Amino acid sequence: MHNRTRDDYLKRLRRIEGQARGLQRMVEDEQYCIDILTQVSAMTKALQAFSLKLLDEHLNHCVLEAARHGGPEADHKIQEASEAIARLVRS
Amino acid sequence: MHNRTRDDYLKRLRRIEGQARGLQRMVEDEQYCIDILTQVSAMTKALQAFSLKLLDEHLNHCVLEAARHGGPEADHKIQEASEAIARLVRS
Amino acid sequence: MHNRTRDDYLKRLRRIEGQARGLQRMVEDEQYCIDILTQVSAMTKALQAFSLKLLDEHLNHCVLEAARHGGPEADHKIQEASEAIARLVRS
Amino acid sequence: MHNRTRDDYLKRLRRIEGQARGLQRMVEDEQYCIDILTQVSAMTKALQAFSLKLLDEHLNHCVLEAARHGGPEADHKIQEASEAIARLVRS
Repeated sequence: MHNRTRDDYLKRLRRIEGQARGLQRMVEDEQYCIDILTQVSAMTKALQAFSLKLLDEHLNHCVLEAARHGGPEADHKIQEASEAIARLVRS
Repeated sequence: MHNRTRDDYLKRLRRIEGQARGLQRMVEDEQYCIDILTQVSAMTKALQAFSLKLLDEHLNHCVLEAARHGGPEADHKIQEASEAIARLVRS
Repeated sequence: MHNRTRDDYLKRLRRIEGQARGLQRMVEDEQYCIDILTQVSAMTKALQAFSLKLLDEHLNHCVLEAARHGGPEADHKIQEASEAIARLVRS
Repeated sequence: MHNRTRDDYLKRLRRIEGQARGLQRMVEDEQYCIDILTQVSAMTKALQAFSLKLLDEHLNHCVLEAARHGGPEADHKIQEASEAIARLVRS
């Protein structure tokens, strides 16, 4: 993992962690349900963007590298990526 | 909001915040992308369950109450809930 | 169900049926996977828009009506709607 | 595309087309909204399963093949797949 990539991931995740804390404050302050739900949608989108970025990097490095060498390891990496994509699409 | 409901919400959100911190540790330790993605799916599911719980409470209290009284406030509450549902379905 | 609403639903569903047939032609013509996937995304969005429209109508009529009268029927309608929303959000 | 794979795709899509027609009958018969929504969820899941199958085949053949040869075509195929995955996850 490149340093710049890792820093981008950590920045995104710290923002997501901040959103989780913001939601707790909203609940403690008994803010309006609909406003809380709007924040949850924003947080879900941020989490989704993070996972798509991670998956993109994974395809461009791990999977591409393994595919270049071929053999059972290439098939395994594709299979693994495919299952991870299914989990993302279904969640 | 009942105390028990609020405590349940806060418990769920603290766990979600913990998941966001867990993901940061995984990135810092350069853990395997696919394992990180699995954790993101779990976190997305937890966030989704929280939003469905919140929406269910909102329909059972705010919306039901407003609908009972009728008038433009009832229509407004239904409209608002409908838009929040669309945001959840689309995210 | 109003005639105009029903006609709108049928028009949407006929278009969705047409998209399903279009996908079959794409597969028969061995068109490129990525182009087929783009059409699937468009069809999923059309189906999602149909379900949100249907749910919106249901909340504005059935649920609002039942809620106005109160009692166990109101609670039942809310419960039922809440479960349908969960199925939509999770699919 | 293998014949067996194509036949499987067509079978899935014909079933999905049948679900779209079934929904039209439900609307014409003015069946209960919640029952229609349940069928929409089933159809969305079938469409999702089709797209995941298609993507899995695409990764195992087109992408793997291009990656084996390397060069800009490999990068292009990965990029294209990554964008298709993002569309599926977001829809």
